[in-house]
This record gives sequence, C-alpha cells and structure tokens, in this order.
Amino acid sequence: MERMSARPHHVGSPYDKDNAEWLLARFREFGWDAEIEVFSVLFPTPTERVLELVAPTRFTARLEEAVVSVDPTSNQKNEQLPTYNAYSIDGDVTGPLVYVNYGRPQDYDVLERYGVSVKDAIVIARYGESWRGIKPKVAAEHGAIGCLIYSDPRDDGFGAGEVFPNGPMRPSDGAQRGSVMDMPVYPGDPLTPGVGATADARRLAVKDATTLTRIPVMPISYADAQPLLASLTGAVVPADWRGGLPIAYHFGPGAGQAHLKLAFSWDQKPLYDVIARLRGSTFPDQWVLRGNHHDAWVNGAEDPVSGMAAVLEEARALGELHKQGWSPKRTIIYCAWDGEEPALLGSTEWAETHAGELQQHAVAYVNSDSNGRGFLEAEGSHTLERFINDVARDIEDPETHLSVWKRKQARAIDQAKAEDKDKVRSRADWRIGALGSGSDYTPFLQHLGVPSLNIGYGGEDSSGIYHSIYDDFYFYTHFLDTDFAYGRALAQTGGTVVIRLADADILPFQYANLVDTLRTYDEELQVLVKKKREEIAERNREIADGVFAAINDPRRPRVAPKVEPVPPAIELTPIARAIETLARRAVALDEARAAAAKKSASTAALAAIDVKIAQSEQQLLDAAGLVHREWFKHLLYAPGFYTGYGVKTMPGVREAIEQAQYQSLPAEIARVAKALEREAAWLDVITKDLRGLK
Amino acid sequence: MERMSARPHHVGSPYDKDNAEWLLARFREFGWDAEIEVFSVLFPTPTERVLELVAPTRFTARLEEAVVSVDPTSNQKNEQLPTYNAYSIDGDVTGPLVYVNYGRPQDYDVLERYGVSVKDAIVIARYGESWRGIKPKVAAEHGAIGCLIYSDPRDDGFGAGEVFPNGPMRPSDGAQRGSVMDMPVYPGDPLTPGVGATADARRLAVKDATTLTRIPVMPISYADAQPLLASLTGAVVPADWRGGLPIAYHFGPGAGQAHLKLAFSWDQKPLYDVIARLRGSTFPDQWVLRGNHHDAWVNGAEDPVSGMAAVLEEARALGELHKQGWSPKRTIIYCAWDGEEPALLGSTEWAETHAGELQQHAVAYVNSDSNGRGFLEAEGSHTLERFINDVARDIEDPETHLSVWKRKQARAIDQAKAEDKDKVRSRADWRIGALGSGSDYTPFLQHLGVPSLNIGYGGEDSSGIYHSIYDDFYFYTHFLDTDFAYGRALAQTGGTVVIRLADADILPFQYANLVDTLRTYDEELQVLVKKKREEIAERNREIADGVFAAINDPRRPRVAPKVEPVPPAIELTPIARAIETLARRAVALDEARAAAAKKSASTAALAAIDVKIAQSEQQLLDAAGLVHREWFKHLLYAPGFYTGYGVKTMPGVREAIEQAQYQSLPAEIARVAKALEREAAWLDVITKDLRGLK
Repeated sequence: MERMSARPHHVGSPYDKDNAEWLLARFREFGWDAEIEVFSVLFPTPTERVLELVAPTRFTARLEEAVVSVDPTSNQKNEQLPTYNAYSIDGDVTGPLVYVNYGRPQDYDVLERYGVSVKDAIVIARYGESWRGIKPKVAAEHGAIGCLIYSDPRDDGFGAGEVFPNGPMRPSDGAQRGSVMDMPVYPGDPLTPGVGATADARRLAVKDATTLTRIPVMPISYADAQPLLASLTGAVVPADWRGGLPIAYHFGPGAGQAHLKLAFSWDQKPLYDVIARLRGSTFPDQWVLRGNHHDAWVNGAEDPVSGMAAVLEEARALGELHKQGWSPKRTIIYCAWDGEEPALLGSTEWAETHAGELQQHAVAYVNSDSNGRGFLEAEGSHTLERFINDVARDIEDPETHLSVWKRKQARAIDQAKAEDKDKVRSRADWRIGALGSGSDYTPFLQHLGVPSLNIGYGGEDSSGIYHSIYDDFYFYTHFLDTDFAYGRALAQTGGTVVIRLADADILPFQYANLVDTLRTYDEELQVLVKKKREEIAERNREIADGVFAAINDPRRPRVAPKVEPVPPAIELTPIARAIETLARRAVALDEARAAAAKKSASTAALAAIDVKIAQSEQQLLDAAGLVHREWFKHLLYAPGFYTGYGVKTMPGVREAIEQAQYQSLPAEIARVAKALEREAAWLDVITKDLRGLK
Repeated sequence: MERMSARPHHVGSPYDKDNAEWLLARFREFGWDAEIEVFSVLFPTPTERVLELVAPTRFTARLEEAVVSVDPTSNQKNEQLPTYNAYSIDGDVTGPLVYVNYGRPQDYDVLERYGVSVKDAIVIARYGESWRGIKPKVAAEHGAIGCLIYSDPRDDGFGAGEVFPNGPMRPSDGAQRGSVMDMPVYPGDPLTPGVGATADARRLAVKDATTLTRIPVMPISYADAQPLLASLTGAVVPADWRGGLPIAYHFGPGAGQAHLKLAFSWDQKPLYDVIARLRGSTFPDQWVLRGNHHDAWVNGAEDPVSGMAAVLEEARALGELHKQGWSPKRTIIYCAWDGEEPALLGSTEWAETHAGELQQHAVAYVNSDSNGRGFLEAEGSHTLERFINDVARDIEDPETHLSVWKRKQARAIDQAKAEDKDKVRSRADWRIGALGSGSDYTPFLQHLGVPSLNIGYGGEDSSGIYHSIYDDFYFYTHFLDTDFAYGRALAQTGGTVVIRLADADILPFQYANLVDTLRTYDEELQVLVKKKREEIAERNREIADGVFAAINDPRRPRVAPKVEPVPPAIELTPIARAIETLARRAVALDEARAAAAKKSASTAALAAIDVKIAQSEQQLLDAAGLVHREWFKHLLYAPGFYTGYGVKTMPGVREAIEQAQYQSLPAEIARVAKALEREAAWLDVITKDLRGLK
C-alpha cells in the first residue's frame, strides 16, 4: 500500500504506469505468467474550472483541497488531478442556483410541489443517496444548464465526526472527485461501446458519444458550497432536505447568478491492465478470474489499494504454493485493472476484447475493491450464494475470532426487522445482495453473463476522504484497517474462493438459493405493483376530494399533485410459473450432483459438465439487452437507470413499473420468464449429464 | 394584544397586575360580573446565574438575549426576567459535561450502551421531544449534579429557517425560559398541594416541597452551548442525536470542567386571577367555564395573548348579546388566569380553592392558550368529541372558506397511514386527542373530573421565539397570525362552544365516541404488552446467542444490554368487558336522549339530569389518585410521568407496563375496569331519568 499510494496514480499519470509495471514485476516474481494489456481510451482532464457568484454579491469558489501538514502526500500538487467530475462536457453557463437535495427523480417531484423550476438554472445537489452520475442526468432532463455536487458536512463532514486530520471525516475544503458518465447506459470507453478500445478499434467521434453528460458538472467542497447555498431564497426546504451547514436551506433561486465554466482536454490516454495467469493442470481451458483495480483518483490508499494489496497477497501465496508443487486444476487469472475510477475502463475494454473467450472459458469472476474493518460484504450471482457462505464459515474474523460467517449472521439478526429475525436465524445461509454497479464486475456479469462475486470487508469505520487527496497511506494507517488485519482476512477469503473454484471437480454452483432469491423478487414486484396502484388511486381520490386544496397554506402555497392513470393490474404469473419449473430442475440437479460426487468420472466428462455449469448464467442474458441500454444483457441484475450503482433486480420488469412504462410490461415479463425457462432447460441438460457419469 | 404585550408581564411584575386590572375593567365594561381573586404562591426568580468552562479552556456563557433594533420591545431589559428555569433549586456545582440528547429515559439507555455515565456530571440536553421538566428529573435519577437545556439550531434555529429578525426562528442568543417543576406529580404552588394558596393556607416549608428539581438547571442559547458541546470528547453520537451546530457532537465527558452556579430569591408572589360571570337564566347553578392565562414569561404576544385576546373578544360579544337582551340558560364564567407559565398556578389554586363547588356546578371547562394560523386543534374529554365536531362544522376557515371541520379532516386524511385513510374518511367525526398537560385544563379535568376541552388554531407557522423576549407584538404581527384572522376564528369557535353548552336543554355529551376511543386504548395496551414481551424475549435471546458480542467493534466498544425478565402475559379482559358494558349503556342513553328531546320537560327535571351528565366524568376519577402522584385522580387521562406534557391514557395501566411495574398491573387494570363499570351504572341512571321525563 505504501508503495502503490506513494504518488497520485490516475489514468494517464506517470505513476499509474509505474504501478502497473511494478505489479507486473511482482506477479512474475511470484511465478505467474503475466503481461500488460494496453488500451487507449477517452479520458478528459480539466484545463479550466471557474465557479463564481457574479451578482448581487461576488464570490469565487476556491476549488482546491488544502495541504495538511501532518499528511506527507497531501502536498503533491503537481501530480494531483484537480477536483472535477470526469466526462462532464465543456460548458460556460450563467444562471440562478436551485438546491435539489440529492438530485434524484423524487427530489424533483418535491420541487414541483413547491412550484420551483430548474429550467435554465444551475442546480446544486448534495452527494449521496444516488450515484453522482445520476444527478446531472436528472438535472438535464428537467432543463437545468449546469450541475454542482457538494459534500454536505452532515453526510461526511463535521456532522458525522471530527474532520481530518483530527478525525476521519471530510475537512471543509475536501471535495469528492468522480465520474459522471452515464454508465447505466454503458460503461467503458465512451468511444468504443461494446468493443475493446484497442489501438485499431473503430471509434465514435466525441460528439457522438451518448454517455457524456448533457450539462457541465463539477464537485465542490462545503466551504465553497456554503456561500452559494446561503445566497438562495424562496421557501425553506423540508426537514429531510436540510444538511449540516449552519444556515437555513432554501430551494432558491435567489437574486444571485452563478457562473460555471469548465473546459477539458479531450485526450486519449493509455490503460495498463496487468493480467497474470497460473495455468490449470486438469481443466486449463476453464478460467477462474480474480480482479481489483490499481488506478486511483489521487493516492488512493483505501480506494483501491486496500483491496489491491490483499489481492496481490493472494497471488503471492498462490505463487508460493505453486513453487512448492501445487498447480490449480483450472487456470487462474489475476487482473489488476487500470481506469476503474473514470468508467470501469480497464475491465470493460478487456472484457469486450475477450468477450468470446470469456463466455467460453470463464468459470467465475471474483472482484474486490476498497477494503476495511468489520464484516464480510459479499454480493453476486445467487448460484454462488451457498459457495461464498461455505467459504465464510472457514475464515476467522480477526477481531472476534468467530468465523466471518457467524459475525455477519449476527449483524443480519441485529439489523433485521422484528418479524424477520427468525427467518434470518433459521436460514442455512445468509443472503447475498445482487450486484448493481460501481466496480469491475459489471462487464463480466451484466454484459457477458460470467458468474460473479464481489467481496470485501467493511462496516466498522466511516470516513469522509473518498476520492480526495486525503485518501492516502497516512490516513489509512491512522483511521482505517491500521494494522491490516482485514487486509489479511480479505486475502484469506479471496484466496480460499479462488482455490476452491479452481480445484473443484464439479463446480460448486448451487441453484436452490437462486430459486429462493427469485421468489423474493417475484414477491417484491407484486408488492411494488400493488402499492403503486393503491398509492396512485388514493392520491387521485384525494385530488378529486379537494384534500390538497383544503390543506394548502396560502402563505406557503404548494402545487397539488397531478392525477395519474392508475397502473393496470399486472399478471406476473409467467415469472412465478417459470420459477417453479426452475425450482424442480434445481432439486434434480442438486441430487444428481450429490450422486455424481461419489463417482470417479473422466476429466473430459467433468470438463463438459463444468463448462455447462459456468455457462448457466449466460442463459439469463438476452442478446437484445435492456430497453435503451442494450449493452446490459442480464435480465436479473442491472444497475438502476436512475440509481446508478444501486441494483435493480429483474430490471426490465421493475423499471417498467417504476417508470410507468406499463405497455412494455407484458413483453418484459415474458422475456424474464423465458430466460428462467431457458435456465431450467439448461439445468436439465446438466442433470442428465451428471446422471450419465460413470 | 398590543396593550397586553406592551411590557413584560410575568407573575409578580407590575404589568402582570396592570393587565389583570385592565382585563377586569374590560369584563365589567362588557357587562360581566367580574372580580379578581388573589393567591400567594412560591415563585422563585434568579439572583445569580453563572455558567462557565473552567478548564482546560475558559469560557463564560453570556446568558442574555440580544436587543433587536427593529423590535421595539426587545430592549425592555429592566422588566425582563432573565433566561432561567423556574423551580430549579439553588446550586453551585462543578463537573464534567455529558451530552444526553433530549434527556429522556431512552437516551440514558443509549448512554449505557456506550458506557457513558452521568454520575457527578453536568448534563447538557437539547430542548424538545419531552417536556423540559423531565430532563433534570431523569438526569438527577441517573446521578447528574446539574442540567443545562439548550435550544439546538436544528430544532428551532437556523436549521429550521431564517432567524429573527430575518425570519421567525430562534437567533443564536435566544433562549427558552420555562418551568422545570415536577408537574406530573402535582402542578400549582409547590407549598400548597391539593389546597388553594389563599393568604391563610397552610404551607409546606420550601425544603419539603417535592416538586422542586433535585439538581440546578438552566436554559441556554445555542451560542452559549456551542463552546460547551465542542469541548466534549468520547464517541461521536449516533445520527439521531446530532443537532445543527457546525461541530461533531460527542457524548463527552471531555477534559473540561463546567461550573454552574444558580441562586434564586424564594419569594411569595401574588397571583391575580380575573373571574367574570354572566348569570344563567334557567340553570344558574350550572357553570360553563372558559379560560386562558394572561401571564407570560416576557411580553408573550403569542403565548398567551394570542389566545387571551380571542377569549376576551368572546366575552365582549357575549356581553353585547346580553345587552341586547339575551341571557344564557347556564351561568358562564370567563377566567383569565395568572401564573400559568410557572406551574398552572392561577388555575390550579383557583380550582383547588373551589373544588367542591366545581364538582357540583361545573358543566365543562374550555381552555385556550397560544393561537395561530391553520387548523383547529382540539383535545379533551371524549364525551365532548361529537359536540366539538358539530361546532367545527359550523365555523368557516378564514383561508380556505371551507368549514374548519372539513379542513381538519382533510389534513387527517393527508397525514394518515395508507391503511388508515379509509377509516379516517368514513368516520363521522374526526378524533380528538386526549389531554396531557401544559395548560390550565389540568386541574379541572385531571384533579376534579370537570369535562374539559382545549381549543386553538395552528399548524401553519413555525417559530423559534417560544418563551423568549422576541415573543412580542412586533414578532406576532410580522410572522404569525398577522391579520388576526385566526384570532377571530378562535373567538367564533370558543363563543359557539360556550353558547351551545350554556343554552342546551340537555347537555350535548355523547358517550358512543368515548366508547369508541376506549376500544382504541384497550387495543393499544394489548399491542404494547405484546410488543414488549416479544422485544425483551428477542433481546434476551440475542444476548444469550452472543449477537452483541459478535457485532461489537473493539475500537468503539458497546456495552451489551442486560437480560431483562420477560413481562408476564397480561389479562386486559376486565377492561374490555367493562368497555362493552359501557357501550350498551351508551347506546341506551343516546336513544333515551333522542326520545327526550321531543318532550317538554320541567326545568327542575332537566337540571337534575344535566348535573348528572356533567358529573359523569367524575365517575372516572379515583380518590386515591395515581401511583406516586395522588393529586392526579383521573384514570383515563394524565400527563406522562416521564413525558411531562405528553398524555398517557389509562395511565395507571400504561405506565405500569412501560415502567415494568408488572406486580401492580392487576390492581391497576381492576380499578380502570371498576371506573368504567361505575360510569356505565351512572349512565344507566341518566337513561332512566331521561325515560322518566314527561
């Protein structure tokens, strides 16, 4: 960590390449067959950043994070990227400011009730609740001409604890860099959607890239935000919109005009993906993939080096085993990705380049990213839920010396609602969440259908240095996993996952947990539809009954909501039926596998079965992709179109309901049902193969 | 309002007496038979107030509200009471500070989980959530030696809107005066519990008064609170404990020591209750009482003059009717109370002095206090729920021109949970809340069993000048009911209530709504017991299973909760059965009344029935009073022992459950059941009398 975070190492920086070469050397030293794959991607960096209030009072934003004297790397100004949001377009706009809370679609519903428009305004949103890239996207949809995103001190500044260097929270000049590309449409190089950004790839013109923002956007500190927010007038915002600054928060606009000017250098930058292989002895054509990114926004000790260091330690340990004579049955591939921060660039371009091979050979992709103290956090394909639970039962938690499984279960019990506690307690496995986006698993799982997991530890520390110059070695070793006990735990966990996946004769996928999870999605969707129908019907009735007019305060008038059509009753039975078909096939497969475990089958026969098991996730893809974003092929898991990182499960169905696209629902329901039937048929084939083993 | 709020007029001040005499003159001018009744009560005022941090840094609190130049009465320093809490004991204490959130019992549970003790510490609590007098009481129970109560800017300062004079919220030097007497034990003069504080009353020695605080307590502004809170160390508090100051909130203690010194002049002060009568023509021995207090903490334009002015306007209007020849059938008594602010002094001493007459003659007591824009707020005896609904159907809301009934129903629909909306919509009457405490109805309802209502308008404006020097005419006419439209609405409402109560042949009490309300209490108690049993059983199980140990963070250790005995299954059937008996009697009575309305009965016969109707509330009293607070005799309504203002319905039963006094439950349940049976039998007598009318 100290080596990798010693200098800023963002995409295109000298130290980014230096780290990649250092990693390459380490993998080779550990005995791996390693290489660097280079891609060339669009990565804008700022050439001009101006933010000012021009009337009635003048204020110019500082837009710079302060050097902290005790922090030895905070002064590396020459190499630090300034505070900015990558893939904002250039812009020079002047307009009134409007505060939009977290800038989610529902926040604009509130603005509408208060009669506040953002048309031709610059919105100021606070970080949090939705992924940052959603904020300018939704703002532009509502007619805003610019977007500022600030870190409210209530969320990760003094409101949450002492600020750096006295504590781990964000100091007043701290700002959060980050990408605002429209990644829910497609991640990776904006100029090469769907194909690898190799030197000779066909590229779009920048103007034709659909994932750049439509308006200029910039992150700012709360020191810079305070004069802007204090200049706003209009109604005082509702309690849940109020942040921690010592001012009254108003919606705006005020008398003031803000001026935002941004210009970027729209250069191609090289990416250095470090790819290291340990060849399988038995099933060399089956690949177990393990990855973490190595690029950072600045020094990035926590994000990503805390994860990368553990992953590298796994590679070292596996290399040691290999030197002592062990070889994995399957080929293991460790990947240190470049360019995750701007847009999952390194993983996406590599996955797109090798799409065909991956769909043929990849058994699973296991990702990590930032790591910290606390609880094992695991999300991913539910066919691997049982597997990751089994791994967790065998890893010791460094603080409690319980298994990390037991500790996580205890937290799940503690956090469950009263009525759910017994279910949590009695379930054999804890549930794993579904993957949305936010790290390098996305191209594998959601574009290619490679079964994926994302693992890491966390939950005990909170900090406010995310994507700032203060995310560095000094900080990490003072406020986070200071003795690297959880770095070791992650290496133990990831290493165990990899070894077990690599050495299993029959891949440890299990379908009962998938079925159980699908049932919860079906139930959620039913509840979603029912609730939406009831809510809209009730609201329409209240509008008709004059409730909103009756409660209106003439001094603080609200605009009554509009009558909306009540959603139709929606027939989810095709999905429910397909789930039950799948349930029967899952039982049969599990029984056949148990029987097969006692046989001594030929390598070739096992290999054929394992390939099919690995490809079962691909049955859940639809080549047509999701509506308006065909890059995303998975019908069960996707990042939300309006949440950004947050997952939407059965996204075609769920988002059609949420976005009131009811006419598309029957088709969306049908294709999920069809995918589940395809999966069921696929399991049937595997079952027959298992039964056929000698 | 301008006249009454022109100068500070707290108990014992020259202008308090001046206002009383002015009111007396007005009532007489309006044609009422008015007099002033004088009492003499203990009312301490400060002689010394010191608050400082003495180590390691020194800070001396200012303890003074700033003059605001546009506000013409804010500079009346010679007559203003300084910021203090009345009935704090004298004290001179030095100790570490601990932040206790709102200072409720459950906040100390959180402190215990964090391993923080307040033993020998001075606690600093924020205003809100519980009545202020609860904070030093609970602090003392936990071993604290002093208590500071500050107004957090998130609750009523800049966090809630612009501060005075730019807006209605509390400025940084503003502080909230107020009583901290242990009024849930008994209100009124601490030296004369249960009897009127007449000149010759027998008095306790001050040292023997049980309602004074046990530790010194003082209110402070957020400007004074900030350096104190900033000096605290220890763990950062949970999110729901964080206020609006631009600092990290810690539990404390810190290295610092705070010094609090308070001394009071423990004088007797005169109270001037203005009592005005309009003699009844038909039932002169039946009294309809209407009251509002006239004393304030300082200028008190909102609290209480906004209510007092409307009540006085009612008296003027009734006087005009009387001059034109109308006389009420019953005697009407208007009361302008003194000394409400310190401890409901004027109403309590008067009610105690006239207890026997009131239980014989009083038909109802109708209270008002501060008034503002918005919705009719009505609480009280549920035998009057139908009646106040009927009045509300006939009063026009000045803003919407709907009836105030309709407007309030609309808000109830808007605010109801989805599953309750239809119930709210279909119920003939909106529900009225039960009365806890906080204004002058308490001695009438909860000590004497006089059926009571509390009415006023509000809900559209919020302000942060409660009990400060800024609650004055300038403020009221800039930020609250600026054109007195709701002052007029209150006078129309109160006047209508009084005329209808005074002129009805058969008093408009209705028992079906009481029964319906009692059923909800029975259900609430059942749920309370069930939930408590489940919660404790679950927590005990989690403790046994090691859940708390497993989730503990060694760097931020928490103390696991202690195993508690699971409450016994509690048999509420006696109450449910009594409610059903009462239900049958209520139906019979309502039918008999409907039949009686068609008869032309003698005055004497009606009078006898009406006295019984008025006394039906007394059947719900128990002369023994509530446990540890025998002054409170009502078995259905009482202020909570640990909420202060907030009501506890069926308090003996509810608080026994909440406070884990399970052994006393059977007796508490039995006496509620018995009271309801007494009430049922009483209704039976009334029904027979009604049937016997000719």
